Amino acid sequence: MHELQHIRKYPDAKLINLGIGDTTKPIPEIISVSMAEYARALSTVEGYRGYGAEQGNKALRKAIAETFYKNVQVKDSEVFVSDGSQCDIARLQLLLGSNVTVAVQDPSFPAYIDTSVIMGQAGDFEEKSGKFGNIEYMKCGPQNNFFPELAKTRRTDIIFFCSPNNPTGYAATRQQLEELVKFAKANGSIIIFDSAYAVYVTDDSPRSIFEIPGAKEVAIEVSSFSKFAGFTGVRLGWTVVPEELCFSNGFPVINDFNRIVCTCFNGASNIAQAGGLACLSSEGFMAVCSVVDYYRENAKILLKTLKSLGLKVYGGENAPYVWAQFPGSKSWDVFDDILEKAHVITVPGSGFGPGGEEFMRISAFGHRETILEASKRLKGLFS
Amino acid sequence: MHELQHIRKYPDAKLINLGIGDTTKPIPEIISVSMAEYARALSTVEGYRGYGAEQGNKALRKAIAETFYKNVQVKDSEVFVSDGSQCDIARLQLLLGSNVTVAVQDPSFPAYIDTSVIMGQAGDFEEKSGKFGNIEYMKCGPQNNFFPELAKTRRTDIIFFCSPNNPTGYAATRQQLEELVKFAKANGSIIIFDSAYAVYVTDDSPRSIFEIPGAKEVAIEVSSFSKFAGFTGVRLGWTVVPEELCFSNGFPVINDFNRIVCTCFNGASNIAQAGGLACLSSEGFMAVCSVVDYYRENAKILLKTLKSLGLKVYGGENAPYVWAQFPGSKSWDVFDDILEKAHVITVPGSGFGPGGEEFMRISAFGHRETILEASKRLKGLFS
Repeated sequence: MHELQHIRKYPDAKLINLGIGDTTKPIPEIISVSMAEYARALSTVEGYRGYGAEQGNKALRKAIAETFYKNVQVKDSEVFVSDGSQCDIARLQLLLGSNVTVAVQDPSFPAYIDTSVIMGQAGDFEEKSGKFGNIEYMKCGPQNNFFPELAKTRRTDIIFFCSPNNPTGYAATRQQLEELVKFAKANGSIIIFDSAYAVYVTDDSPRSIFEIPGAKEVAIEVSSFSKFAGFTGVRLGWTVVPEELCFSNGFPVINDFNRIVCTCFNGASNIAQAGGLACLSSEGFMAVCSVVDYYRENAKILLKTLKSLGLKVYGGENAPYVWAQFPGSKSWDVFDDILEKAHVITVPGSGFGPGGEEFMRISAFGHRETILEASKRLKGLFS
Repeated sequence: MHELQHIRKYPDAKLINLGIGDTTKPIPEIISVSMAEYARALSTVEGYRGYGAEQGNKALRKAIAETFYKNVQVKDSEVFVSDGSQCDIARLQLLLGSNVTVAVQDPSFPAYIDTSVIMGQAGDFEEKSGKFGNIEYMKCGPQNNFFPELAKTRRTDIIFFCSPNNPTGYAATRQQLEELVKFAKANGSIIIFDSAYAVYVTDDSPRSIFEIPGAKEVAIEVSSFSKFAGFTGVRLGWTVVPEELCFSNGFPVINDFNRIVCTCFNGASNIAQAGGLACLSSEGFMAVCSVVDYYRENAKILLKTLKSLGLKVYGGENAPYVWAQFPGSKSWDVFDDILEKAHVITVPGSGFGPGGEEFMRISAFGHRETILEASKRLKGLFS
């Protein structure tokens, strides 16, 4: 709405969108060619394929296990191919039902709370606090190194945890994740770990929760080709449910998840799966990583620009998001200010929960010249 | 299991599978070329696309409304593109929650009951009756023209109704559907009408529930490109939720469904959607229909064969399934008999509910020579 009003007010301004968490760079040729060839072959007797396995094709499950989980020994059979992590979050909620309690990082990607509300796990929305009842908001900000104070955190059945985090761009350290796993184990909680941005990690922060000893007994990992390979529109992701993970009655969660997948899902598009397999070939992986490097460089530019202006900025090193703090300001006011004066769209942090107030999420998913132009404008605005 | 045992026992027998409801014919070139071109363009700056609308791309929604609902005035905005009707059935269940009562045709496509059980709508399974508690089984067989005796049917919140029916192959008549709509209206029930096989209708049976006056106030329609265009592996379908359909408190169902789609789904693969659009071009539609005609001819051959043997056979005229009755026999025994003696796999009707006992579903989704060979073997077995 703001955006449309702005366009009407300034029809000649070149609006730059650093708001949406959507990829913008073309997919490497080796991958699009694989998908195109797979699609073309569907017109041949040899290449036609009907229903595939609901859990995904075997070669892709194997490639995911080998590419992302080689050192933590995830089995092919523990990998479920999906049409994106958001869709699998909803299917996990369907598995969990309405009688579970849920904790989320605050701020966090809205899908966790939104699906929780739909399932009937949450209480009413409280205007004053900006929170839903019955949901534990684990505040994460600079004051606590973007990691919740677990000693003060209420026990819940489920803990959604996203690292590298959307929106803060922060990747939890090994020690922090060890604490999280310990906390979940002590409480009999299940962690749903969202690693959709894992490939953006540049330091030695864990790229998977399963790098933490004992995590297989307490965690599920959802992940995605979206931000890794520009598949936001192609739709492909995966979920790992370890065999070791059991409900309190000893029943393996993987059996229930398999049932959900077979009943409520019919597998990701076989063309998208062919693309996923190409992404994980050695040549494809290199090509995809060079696009990730490009976004990383964008993030670096934004981070450097905002730091040079004396702003308090976080994230950006292990994620394609920069998280800028404007102490004492309302994030919607900052949004309006940046839009009005620099013609740049950002995302007000409060959209990710009350813990995001005062902050702005600035996305590095743009073309280089756009990022450079936005940086110039932000310099003009804030210096 | 039966199948594997059989292969071990008869390693040289040429097993024919008329069991699975999966398409086998290659997709027409015009469609695979469209998908391939779309995929290739994802590697170009001009052709790259990220997230699309969760509800599907506008051109495709429009084309679906115009192709399938021109005479019943469904709006583009009432069409939600999905990754298949089974997936949308699960999303509809998520919308409905656990406190609704459900009726299904007996026999019926298992997804209705399976998702109902997962949502917690159903009671325990009763071994003796072969039924889940709390679900209304509306028996449909030759004795009642494959249409439930509504006067004896318990009122439920939801009525799943599939026509042309899987597994019986029966397409409800206009009069029958008028009765159904009247019944739903009188009871304040919502019909979830599954028209996945509509394109197989050859007579004047309705192809959409919305052909029935007043249906928009009581029905949702789920449908699919799977059996229409061989997209079982490509994954594409749609759901129509009319604006007129409201909950008893007056709230439009479409608003809630839109929320579910935006929260729990991120849209069908854009490549699959490009394929869907090609299916609905005039040339694409003709090509797709010729494949449908091919399967129809298969069904005719199977129907003729079985009739010539004096068996009681139904369906096959408006659907790719022939429904053969073996009075007094258990359908698993008939299955074993056909497998053992003719090396042909069929589906025991009891797998679709207790009302399917005594029946076999024989699928016409095969290559012509396979269908002819199977017919020959069935003739040998039953004559």
